[in-house]
Amino acid sequence: MAKKQKTFKPKARVPRGFRDRAGDELVAEREMLARISAVYEAHGFDPLETPAFEYTDALGKFLPDVDRPNAGVFSLQDDDEQWMSLRYDLTAPLARYVAENFDALPKPFRRYQVGPVWRNEKPGPGRFRQFTQCDADTVGAPAPHADAEMCVLFAEVIEAAGVLREDFVIRVSNRKIVDGLFEKLGLADEGDVQTRLNVMRSMDKFDRLGEAGVRLLLGPGRKDESGDFTEGVKLSDDNIDAVIAFLTSTVDGDDKATLDNLNAIVSETKSGKAGVEELVEISRQIPEVYNHAVAIDCSIIRGLEYYTGPVFEADLTFEAKDKKGRPVQLGSVGGGGRYDGLVKRFKGVEVPAVGISVGVSRLLAALELKKPAAAEAAGPVVVLALEKDQMASYQEMAAELRNAGLRAEVYLGGSNFAKQLKYADKRRAPVAVIQGEDERGRGEVTIKDLVRGAELSKQIKDNTEWREEQKAQFAVAREDLVEAVKKVLARRK
Amino acid sequence: MAKKQKTFKPKARVPRGFRDRAGDELVAEREMLARISAVYEAHGFDPLETPAFEYTDALGKFLPDVDRPNAGVFSLQDDDEQWMSLRYDLTAPLARYVAENFDALPKPFRRYQVGPVWRNEKPGPGRFRQFTQCDADTVGAPAPHADAEMCVLFAEVIEAAGVLREDFVIRVSNRKIVDGLFEKLGLADEGDVQTRLNVMRSMDKFDRLGEAGVRLLLGPGRKDESGDFTEGVKLSDDNIDAVIAFLTSTVDGDDKATLDNLNAIVSETKSGKAGVEELVEISRQIPEVYNHAVAIDCSIIRGLEYYTGPVFEADLTFEAKDKKGRPVQLGSVGGGGRYDGLVKRFKGVEVPAVGISVGVSRLLAALELKKPAAAEAAGPVVVLALEKDQMASYQEMAAELRNAGLRAEVYLGGSNFAKQLKYADKRRAPVAVIQGEDERGRGEVTIKDLVRGAELSKQIKDNTEWREEQKAQFAVAREDLVEAVKKVLARRK
Repeated sequence: MAKKQKTFKPKARVPRGFRDRAGDELVAEREMLARISAVYEAHGFDPLETPAFEYTDALGKFLPDVDRPNAGVFSLQDDDEQWMSLRYDLTAPLARYVAENFDALPKPFRRYQVGPVWRNEKPGPGRFRQFTQCDADTVGAPAPHADAEMCVLFAEVIEAAGVLREDFVIRVSNRKIVDGLFEKLGLADEGDVQTRLNVMRSMDKFDRLGEAGVRLLLGPGRKDESGDFTEGVKLSDDNIDAVIAFLTSTVDGDDKATLDNLNAIVSETKSGKAGVEELVEISRQIPEVYNHAVAIDCSIIRGLEYYTGPVFEADLTFEAKDKKGRPVQLGSVGGGGRYDGLVKRFKGVEVPAVGISVGVSRLLAALELKKPAAAEAAGPVVVLALEKDQMASYQEMAAELRNAGLRAEVYLGGSNFAKQLKYADKRRAPVAVIQGEDERGRGEVTIKDLVRGAELSKQIKDNTEWREEQKAQFAVAREDLVEAVKKVLARRK
Repeated sequence: MAKKQKTFKPKARVPRGFRDRAGDELVAEREMLARISAVYEAHGFDPLETPAFEYTDALGKFLPDVDRPNAGVFSLQDDDEQWMSLRYDLTAPLARYVAENFDALPKPFRRYQVGPVWRNEKPGPGRFRQFTQCDADTVGAPAPHADAEMCVLFAEVIEAAGVLREDFVIRVSNRKIVDGLFEKLGLADEGDVQTRLNVMRSMDKFDRLGEAGVRLLLGPGRKDESGDFTEGVKLSDDNIDAVIAFLTSTVDGDDKATLDNLNAIVSETKSGKAGVEELVEISRQIPEVYNHAVAIDCSIIRGLEYYTGPVFEADLTFEAKDKKGRPVQLGSVGGGGRYDGLVKRFKGVEVPAVGISVGVSRLLAALELKKPAAAEAAGPVVVLALEKDQMASYQEMAAELRNAGLRAEVYLGGSNFAKQLKYADKRRAPVAVIQGEDERGRGEVTIKDLVRGAELSKQIKDNTEWREEQKAQFAVAREDLVEAVKKVLARRK
């Protein structure tokens, strides 16, 4: 007895940490990206597309997850044994592109890029390993003119994405001021790199844990609600006070006062002084209309190691609630900064550069919370296919509707009438077009208003239902098809 | 003497087989994709985005390069040891998506997807390892209605991309007819799979090598111009005649005659008969306007193994020459077909499906050859930055121009005047806006028409050059800036 060979049947599942996206979400993203790109282009930025892969050595040590050196990215070996990695951001590939094409490019070089990036991180809820970024960078332009321009561009872009000017703020800090703080704390030595990193991580939690929490992290350590203990950095009390003074230096709505505070803390150090001066100049160059949308705030710490000067973060400030009415922490929807050393890795000489990156998915999700639950977009008009030998004539009806600028399709499954109407419902079709043998004999089509039909059948739940539903449909002469459908659609506008 | 440590300096280079794309090419692609997407949406297709990765077992045996099983794709092992691969097309991920979400989807399910795909193939000239595809598929709709609709959709899409209706043809064949041919040749057994593959490869070269070349490949073998010898399939003379009759069965412009020829060759076999009947029905359903744009032609062989019925190929038919005036073989700009078995791999039950895929890069390249050498798109208006303490005022000028709908930027490099003008040239700026100290004192700006300037300096190559060039610039009051720039730009329209 021959044993029947079992065919291998793989399980259909999207890879861990990745997701499929469909319909309305994609359309909304496409429209947002088009609006953002239009702003970038108006400012003289041209589009660039680099491939998904870079050689791993070109991405270098600037990996996003410093906890696991050489991890954080997806890497594989090419058949000539060179290691390649999927890009984890759009900045490192830009540095490689500029270095490779340096002589041919106009300088300063302005480019924008839109596309997916990949992070080989532990997947978690709402944390995906592929997401869309939308960046603009100016390479070859020294601070602070280019930095000020970036702040304004950032504000324009967030506005263009659909956020009101009073509902966001571009916070501006400066890596040099943080360096100044470390100098003052006596933590500027080569050997203190790990301590500096731990201090910065603690500082980064200021908006979530507040002063008390950060004091514990900088000092003896902190036990969180779940009982987990985080080892403290064990700074002296004086140093902890200095860090807290730094974090609380921001005076809302008064850049000058903020800068005075910062000056008092770090001006005795060289980099601190330089950093404050740069921020003064940036602040001076922000046009009045954006005075409240751009604010100096040194409590923001951007994670990427490659920043060398001003850093930016776009934060949403409106109050948002989830579907269950619970308040939602919106957080940052983009960031950026100056990275004068990134092209230098290839070229040997320093090439000043500054850029911003918009977190498109986060921005979309936040705007989704803000607006009233949007009606899902309507689907196409569905032409039912009741007689299989009349397909060409149904296709003609759909083509006529499309030529009039409408979305329209012919049902392509079986001939069961109820199933076809159910399909039209599932497709969110606003209208079904019906021509059976009888209608065809009379040279007519039936137009069924599915939205009105649904409303009526919600109201009436008894035997008259069927008769009432008839109110939502009517017959017209075949040649009046397009006009009749248009009239029904106009009711919904 | 301490030896100075040498810093590692990576070479800036794009990975082998990949490329960067910039400016005009990207804008042209974006516009083409928008037009194609609009056609898909009008036909009731909704967008879908699957991630770059799929589990390797989900891509399964349907790999594009059958010569190297399990090669052809970029694969890596996730940290839970599952193998993942970058998608090599958009069809295999669709099959996984449909199987994973089967119950929730409307059926038939129509979706379109635009995005990059990756092939781990030997890079060659014009052969890249990442490229853009733009697909539409209908899953759950049986032949031949859905197939006929796909042919028409394919034609509409190629037209929307910018090809005239007389300049392309959608060729339609049927995998079942090829199966019928193999049955007739006595090559239908399990053990003949390699021979069938070799025969199909030889057939695929018919349009390039002609009848004589294909006869050699099917028989004793063929030596090409370079002297390389390709082993022949060594069919009998009768069988070679049958294959050639099959390849030459197409009667241009007369589907009925073509179908009669095919019928005479394969109707004695079950699958051949079924295949011809399907083509007859498809042909019957093509609306008259597309009668010449869609043609039955069994000389086309689509490479992918997963097709089970009708296959389509979009070919450009206009004559094209490269920049040196040499004729260019345009080849196929897209393909597709019916693949009833692809979802079955996951579900166990057969789910009929049919789709098309547009080769966007090839289509763009071909259209580039067709049109008269296009002038490169103009760059942004460049506002020169002559006095560093006036940056805010220059930025204001640029903002005013942008508010009027123009692209405009401020020069952000050094203060050298000649260098700034050179930059404006390199950016293809149509206009430079100049305000030095003198102009500022008078409340004026100078508008320099860079296009006219370039024309004039081409004409005049003597000492008067400078004076003549002045004709291309003029001063206006500061408040007339926008009007004056618009006037200059209007000259070029």
